[in-house]
Amino acid sequence: MDLVSQLNHVFYPGSVAVIGASSNPQKPGYLCTSNLVNDGFKGKIYPVNPSLSEFAGLKTYSSILDISGEVDLAISVVPAEQAVSVLQDCVKKDVKGIIFVSAGFRETGSEIGLNLQNELKEIADKAGIKIIGPNTMGLLNTKNNLNATFSPGLGLCKTGNVSVVSQSGGMCVYLVNALAGNNIGVGKVIGLGNRCNLDFDEMVEYLDNDDETEVIVLYIEGLNSPKKLMEVALETVKKKPVIVFKGGRSEESSAATRSHTGSLAGKYEYYKAAFRQSGMIPVDTLTELADVTKALLLQPPARGNRLAVLSLQAGPGIIAADKAREYGMRLSAFSQDTKKRLREKISPLLSIENPVDMAWTGSSVDTSREILRVVLADENVDVVMVAFISFDLSRELPKALIEVAADAKKPVVACVGTLGSVEDTINALEEAGIPTYPFPDRACIGLAGLVKYGSIRESIVDS
Amino acid sequence: MDLVSQLNHVFYPGSVAVIGASSNPQKPGYLCTSNLVNDGFKGKIYPVNPSLSEFAGLKTYSSILDISGEVDLAISVVPAEQAVSVLQDCVKKDVKGIIFVSAGFRETGSEIGLNLQNELKEIADKAGIKIIGPNTMGLLNTKNNLNATFSPGLGLCKTGNVSVVSQSGGMCVYLVNALAGNNIGVGKVIGLGNRCNLDFDEMVEYLDNDDETEVIVLYIEGLNSPKKLMEVALETVKKKPVIVFKGGRSEESSAATRSHTGSLAGKYEYYKAAFRQSGMIPVDTLTELADVTKALLLQPPARGNRLAVLSLQAGPGIIAADKAREYGMRLSAFSQDTKKRLREKISPLLSIENPVDMAWTGSSVDTSREILRVVLADENVDVVMVAFISFDLSRELPKALIEVAADAKKPVVACVGTLGSVEDTINALEEAGIPTYPFPDRACIGLAGLVKYGSIRESIVDS
Repeated sequence: MDLVSQLNHVFYPGSVAVIGASSNPQKPGYLCTSNLVNDGFKGKIYPVNPSLSEFAGLKTYSSILDISGEVDLAISVVPAEQAVSVLQDCVKKDVKGIIFVSAGFRETGSEIGLNLQNELKEIADKAGIKIIGPNTMGLLNTKNNLNATFSPGLGLCKTGNVSVVSQSGGMCVYLVNALAGNNIGVGKVIGLGNRCNLDFDEMVEYLDNDDETEVIVLYIEGLNSPKKLMEVALETVKKKPVIVFKGGRSEESSAATRSHTGSLAGKYEYYKAAFRQSGMIPVDTLTELADVTKALLLQPPARGNRLAVLSLQAGPGIIAADKAREYGMRLSAFSQDTKKRLREKISPLLSIENPVDMAWTGSSVDTSREILRVVLADENVDVVMVAFISFDLSRELPKALIEVAADAKKPVVACVGTLGSVEDTINALEEAGIPTYPFPDRACIGLAGLVKYGSIRESIVDS
Repeated sequence: MDLVSQLNHVFYPGSVAVIGASSNPQKPGYLCTSNLVNDGFKGKIYPVNPSLSEFAGLKTYSSILDISGEVDLAISVVPAEQAVSVLQDCVKKDVKGIIFVSAGFRETGSEIGLNLQNELKEIADKAGIKIIGPNTMGLLNTKNNLNATFSPGLGLCKTGNVSVVSQSGGMCVYLVNALAGNNIGVGKVIGLGNRCNLDFDEMVEYLDNDDETEVIVLYIEGLNSPKKLMEVALETVKKKPVIVFKGGRSEESSAATRSHTGSLAGKYEYYKAAFRQSGMIPVDTLTELADVTKALLLQPPARGNRLAVLSLQAGPGIIAADKAREYGMRLSAFSQDTKKRLREKISPLLSIENPVDMAWTGSSVDTSREILRVVLADENVDVVMVAFISFDLSRELPKALIEVAADAKKPVVACVGTLGSVEDTINALEEAGIPTYPFPDRACIGLAGLVKYGSIRESIVDS
């Protein structure tokens, strides 16, 4: 079975067995089963545990081998020492993938743990089973309400086309939170854990072929085979962006021991260079991760780095101008024609230089629309930020922005300041494909992502 | 009248007159009046406009001189060319402060504008009136529901003890939004605009003496007299922290014209050095501003930069360790005694090195409490971050944290990952004085603020 078909069984299973299901709400075996039930997975759910007679009205099984139907995906929460036996049963049952939640393998640093993991790998490779983990939170797919993790709520996050591959299970939650908290929907999320026989390169290859994934987000702590990932990424980024956040940037943190300095910072620089060489976009904070992801999800790559800022208030325009340079952009110099046409629309008291101070013109949808069109048409402009404070006198501006952005060929983002709730405005803008940020600095980070991806695409096509 | 008494009249007025009040909801004269009414200001409100017969049931006046009672604060929304006449009336009326909302003064760069502003200054200085602006959004004080701005909703933000002084009116909204959006209450907010005769140094001096202000936040674009502010700040930071965000970091942005590069970045470095010399804490993004403000509002300054991280999941601990160094901290090396005592509480499978992997121990309030106490007691630890994902198996940890933090002498912050809503947890932690962040990187930024302020306080006391 090829990788794509196999992982399709894992992410779109017809049936899931939980080996070690439990009725004790404090146990992962309970959480894994109840999450499948409560988050609305529509396939068959088989709780497996010889000492469990019932689970939420579901029939239970003493062994996975007692299940009469097919099992696509198994989740095992039993202790490490039982993993081999569980896996052997899964081989017999012709399971396509198995999540090993429990710890106690390579990550312990012990010989026993390492041997145990190697044994799992050998069996799984031979049988053609994909192991997720061991030592992982599991995976989820919002497209079919599959929450195959022990973390409740993962299945409740907004569905969308950003997929996340994380080395750490715990970080899955922070990553999804960073996205969901910024109105970005996720599709598939997987914690790779110890990466026994499913690694980053394979997941990227799978998501490259996945029509329900438009942006790929990776959280990487360390790689055994960076070259493989780099090769796959170089292909993938021709179609969709790959954003990468690296944890464990120093020995201090990755080994979770204390201070050796020096060479270690350099290690991250090595990773960063490798990411960049293969067209991935490294980010340095979870906020940046969300901001860049949102822009790449909603807008096309930029053709250049020249930014035009249209602001209803001078202050945010100034911040945007400051940050533009910091994040690798520069302010566009408008053409004479643009200036002439802006002057016709904007009070002589206001600046028509970039950043443009639109002031009260935001209260007219016609004027706003024309100003936006003029600026977008300027050949010296590659990307546009529109910043405004949301209140009565600016309520026409988002309407104009939505209209104009619909047929703009250049990336546009919005920055909306507010004191009340502007969820409606944000939703309207983002449904129209305009990424919206709360601060000008974050809007710049988003735009900078589009500029980076634009130049990645260009350089890969050129080379 | 001394500065403090005078500005007390401005921030705690018994009565406010709006000169140029309007019944047209599209006009600032309407917004300024309706904001006073709607946001619950309890003092007297006098709409002034000869062509206005009524406003929301309030009596209106043709001239401020027709008002029989005293007027502490006036808000003028009339055009620039009428400002002198308005000010002269205010002098006659013995008004203590006046907000000039309208533009058309020094900021135009024209001689007329400059002369007009100088004339205002001369009259106001002579009469002992403080002018807020011209060219400003106004001010607000959440302590008495005073929204003396044209922006609705400002008066609705959470009340608290962070005060904001902004050069730009528009940025007031973004700044308050950055704070309010992160559960931080604001007290006084003022847009200084053109700083005719009320400047940053005076506002900092006033807020230094204000018992309702615990943290001062400044948004500065440019200073005429940096020395004055530096002198005042050097005194103020002995009592309370001053956080400063600088806009207009390049000629490109501050003049809002295009690209000269080179010398300009250096200009911000000059400002930054000046801020630091005088004990202020410069920040580079609005997110950082919120994160540092929250930590300084809720926790004591740190005595050193050695960080201990306790995490229920390994991933967030690793990110925290990465960021610690980036933000000027380092991981504590625990004492032998600490390690011994941690080993008694934590499974032999888990690391007791820093960052500590607490894993499932978070489900026991007793174990959590003891682990926290042991780490806080270690003399090699200056600041502590506790990171956890909020779900059933971690629900005891916040309880333990709240108990232990109550008598901790060292700064403690929390980092809570979630996919559902954890408002309750965040509120409980923050009401107990524990700043709470959504990501480990942001928690580090908050802690780094406490480390900086700790060393500022130490160096000023020492010098």
